[in-house]
Amino acid sequence: MTAAELFGQIQKKKSFLCVGLDTDIQRIPEFLKKEKDPVFEFNKRIIEATHEFAVAYKPNIAFYEAQGPKGWESLQKTLEIIPKDCFTIADAKRGDIGNTSKLYARAFFDKEASGMSFDSVTVAPYMGEDSVTPFLEFEGKWVILLALTSNKGSSDFQQILVDDDKVFQKVLKTSKNWGNTDNMMYVVGATKAEALQEIRQIVPDHFLLVPGVGAQGGSLEEVAKNGMNSQCGLLVNSSRGIIYASSGEDFAEVAALEAEKLQKEMASLLNNLL
Amino acid sequence: MTAAELFGQIQKKKSFLCVGLDTDIQRIPEFLKKEKDPVFEFNKRIIEATHEFAVAYKPNIAFYEAQGPKGWESLQKTLEIIPKDCFTIADAKRGDIGNTSKLYARAFFDKEASGMSFDSVTVAPYMGEDSVTPFLEFEGKWVILLALTSNKGSSDFQQILVDDDKVFQKVLKTSKNWGNTDNMMYVVGATKAEALQEIRQIVPDHFLLVPGVGAQGGSLEEVAKNGMNSQCGLLVNSSRGIIYASSGEDFAEVAALEAEKLQKEMASLLNNLL
Repeated sequence: MTAAELFGQIQKKKSFLCVGLDTDIQRIPEFLKKEKDPVFEFNKRIIEATHEFAVAYKPNIAFYEAQGPKGWESLQKTLEIIPKDCFTIADAKRGDIGNTSKLYARAFFDKEASGMSFDSVTVAPYMGEDSVTPFLEFEGKWVILLALTSNKGSSDFQQILVDDDKVFQKVLKTSKNWGNTDNMMYVVGATKAEALQEIRQIVPDHFLLVPGVGAQGGSLEEVAKNGMNSQCGLLVNSSRGIIYASSGEDFAEVAALEAEKLQKEMASLLNNLL
Repeated sequence: MTAAELFGQIQKKKSFLCVGLDTDIQRIPEFLKKEKDPVFEFNKRIIEATHEFAVAYKPNIAFYEAQGPKGWESLQKTLEIIPKDCFTIADAKRGDIGNTSKLYARAFFDKEASGMSFDSVTVAPYMGEDSVTPFLEFEGKWVILLALTSNKGSSDFQQILVDDDKVFQKVLKTSKNWGNTDNMMYVVGATKAEALQEIRQIVPDHFLLVPGVGAQGGSLEEVAKNGMNSQCGLLVNSSRGIIYASSGEDFAEVAALEAEKLQKEMASLLNNLL
């Protein structure tokens, strides 16, 4: 999917919502646990209930990996049923030296090898350019590079000063030439809405993936005000606020209501771009 | 395994060798490909042939993940047959925010959840303290934190200057108090032997995992001279130089010879500590 096609979906659905499929076997409703693959059943109902309000889905790979091989099977099956007009993100935060990053790229982009082909994968920048470029060799696929995360620990290294820049600004400046606006996005934690302005000065045209709206406390309006560009340029993720909004048999229905609520707010923030 | 127990194994085997199980389905000998699980069969023979010369095994997870669920099964089975006196490292380079890191910890440390329980896992530092500490909550388990890697891209961010330190030195100084010398090690690329001295000034007592001897070009003698402490404090990894030393039916035999060669060199470098 190109950036223009993604923007097309955003215009069509009047939404830049990404639903995070952080599906924890310990948190899914009791009645689903009798199913053969409860994680997949949960995801299936969430996707069916929310896809008209969302342009992207983002399974966080940790939740599947924690289940061993059967978790990877749930992930594969989940990816299969995500509607083709939705952008898919493997939130894996991988990163290794060149040769090995190529294998991680195969894991998430090469269906023949691993059984899965996501549109994009999140990557950690610590190991530098040759840990990222192997992912960019896959035509039509995206790297979403961690820049500024929303957790407390982001102050440990991401925000320390290097000359006049913080480390995450250095990451943006150095990496923005590794790919282009059709194959690279950045993860930017929504709790730092004021930092979005600085980030937009460095990467005005790249899409940004913003986690942390909702349960992690960011404000959607702030994010849009500081981060939106003429092609929207934002995917805003909500995970727990949607998928765990109810723990009863009505979980999918309530998830749809939460997703719709965000979509409506997004529609009004997109106003000028529709 | 405690640091003292690991040092005990090093003394017993006169070796600080870690064998990297970077088992690429595309590179294993033809004759094994008729087996039901060629990757596991390859690993089994490598482990049987090398374990008297090695104190640790390090599967790089990318190679297994690239095969989808069946790759994770090969990994599980491989872990089962590594002798219990060997230290096991899941070279996964994971790292996510606190809640999610806990799930990655489950994936590699909690056998009941994922089917696997490694002694240690490699972790990327970019997301800071709360991305690392969830791993440390597992009694007897280790985090091996990336400090300075051996690839070209390590100059992009790891080596940029912050005040008087490079970023990787900042990582060492900040993180060394998150755990202790019984639950934290550091990855230090062997091609930077001169940097080892600086690193030893910051973390004199921690074990260091040194990749990149052999195929990646580091010198074992230089590493020992600059990195060894009174408890050895080193695990030196070799992957391709051992496991792909021959591509014929004699691959395991030749791997044993290469492992023994390194072990002998290590025995003489350990001289004073035996």
